[in-house]
Amino acid sequence: MLDFAAACDGLASQPFSRLLGARLTEFGDGAATLELDIRVGLQQQNGYLHGGVLAYAADNALTFAAGTALGPALLTAGFTIDYLRPAVGAVLRARAVVVQAGRSRATCRCEVYTLDEGREPLMCAAAQGSARRRA
Amino acid sequence: MLDFAAACDGLASQPFSRLLGARLTEFGDGAATLELDIRVGLQQQNGYLHGGVLAYAADNALTFAAGTALGPALLTAGFTIDYLRPAVGAVLRARAVVVQAGRSRATCRCEVYTLDEGREPLMCAAAQGSARRRA
Amino acid sequence: MLDFAAACDGLASQPFSRLLGARLTEFGDGAATLELDIRVGLQQQNGYLHGGVLAYAADNALTFAAGTALGPALLTAGFTIDYLRPAVGAVLRARAVVVQAGRSRATCRCEVYTLDEGREPLMCAAAQGSARRRA
Amino acid sequence: MLDFAAACDGLASQPFSRLLGARLTEFGDGAATLELDIRVGLQQQNGYLHGGVLAYAADNALTFAAGTALGPALLTAGFTIDYLRPAVGAVLRARAVVVQAGRSRATCRCEVYTLDEGREPLMCAAAQGSARRRA
Repeated sequence: MLDFAAACDGLASQPFSRLLGARLTEFGDGAATLELDIRVGLQQQNGYLHGGVLAYAADNALTFAAGTALGPALLTAGFTIDYLRPAVGAVLRARAVVVQAGRSRATCRCEVYTLDEGREPLMCAAAQGSARRRA
Repeated sequence: MLDFAAACDGLASQPFSRLLGARLTEFGDGAATLELDIRVGLQQQNGYLHGGVLAYAADNALTFAAGTALGPALLTAGFTIDYLRPAVGAVLRARAVVVQAGRSRATCRCEVYTLDEGREPLMCAAAQGSARRRA
Repeated sequence: MLDFAAACDGLASQPFSRLLGARLTEFGDGAATLELDIRVGLQQQNGYLHGGVLAYAADNALTFAAGTALGPALLTAGFTIDYLRPAVGAVLRARAVVVQAGRSRATCRCEVYTLDEGREPLMCAAAQGSARRRA
Repeated sequence: MLDFAAACDGLASQPFSRLLGARLTEFGDGAATLELDIRVGLQQQNGYLHGGVLAYAADNALTFAAGTALGPALLTAGFTIDYLRPAVGAVLRARAVVVQAGRSRATCRCEVYTLDEGREPLMCAAAQGSARRRA
């Protein structure tokens, strides 16, 4: 099984996660939280965070949450994301939890929030997906 | 309605799409194709393209395909992606088509391929999603 | 808005829900629970509840949960379901909650359980979907 | 591998499919088509076919299509369905095709149509899902 430090190393070994500036802030007990600082380079044409960034965060948080149950050798099978509102703020936070895990597959849910000073976190997307242990 | 040049301008106005190096190669008649050159910065830890890049490409191709039916003022409602095989190669291509479009909503499908010299395109993900006209 | 009695009448006015023997056991405050007694006629070839019954229960629970926020004139836009384990037992229970509701759309999640005497409820499926107010 | 007759027997061995009156009209070469006659008992409160019936048809067509690639010992992992228009007519037809199949998993798409005399089939739902070979 992975511990928090090893999971952080795992994230840091993903060039795309470094490009986006993602960091793990929670890993273990069936849950994982990934955060990144919102910046102009991650936006779409209206100044909102691009949906692709939300999808990245959900995909990766789901996969790390699955990793708390299945270990590091994983394949993400797929996921669904519903966008709930435009994403603006200082920080994007994706928290995923394991809904059910067997020996070879884990199904997880993820809630994606934007954080900003002086207000409560706002949920901007909800996702559900699963990952399988690599054969 | 949007023409190809206007759609390319739309894509170019998305900072995140510029960060990823995405380009439109088809837009119109209920279909849109988006491509990007695969590079190390878009990979995960095993040298495959990160799932988040595939999700970005599917999300954006689905939205542009919906834009051929609904015009440029769109909100992506959400989508589902199934990962089919590890994505390696020179170019990622996401082609989306409108399955059904009403006045306010379009449902689209997307196939994501990797291209490389000397071989046929390989499908690495399949997605389905919908977008709505912005009120 | 709908109250519990009106929601039960709504369910009873669906011939397919009568065919399956579904009943509402909770409706309000952003949540709805639908139950049905498991019987041979709802099974697949191995004696498990057919996936289509789980899908029906998730679809309808999601829609009723959305109805607590949007009122009775709804269209279900679609949903995703992940099957977690074979469904056996005496009763199927699908509980859905609203994740986010705007004026015209509500996104909901649903957990589907089987119940049997002498054991804890077992989650057999997890779903996520959305419904829109009918124009 | 299954042939058409064996697949029809498989469908007939599902009590729920008999309750709904489903029949296979195509099975093989990566595709499966399932049909059922629309009747009042399958409707919701407005005289449309219940979404749960469309979901059943998509789930089962996806699974049978996967069975053309993986054989009869299957578990449906899950699926997504987008409802496109109210379903009315004489016959419901769900046709699924394999998008990609490996040794242990097949991902499929399904289009659901209503048929009626004197008009073209109308697509009322689009689905995507996957099934795995049972261990």
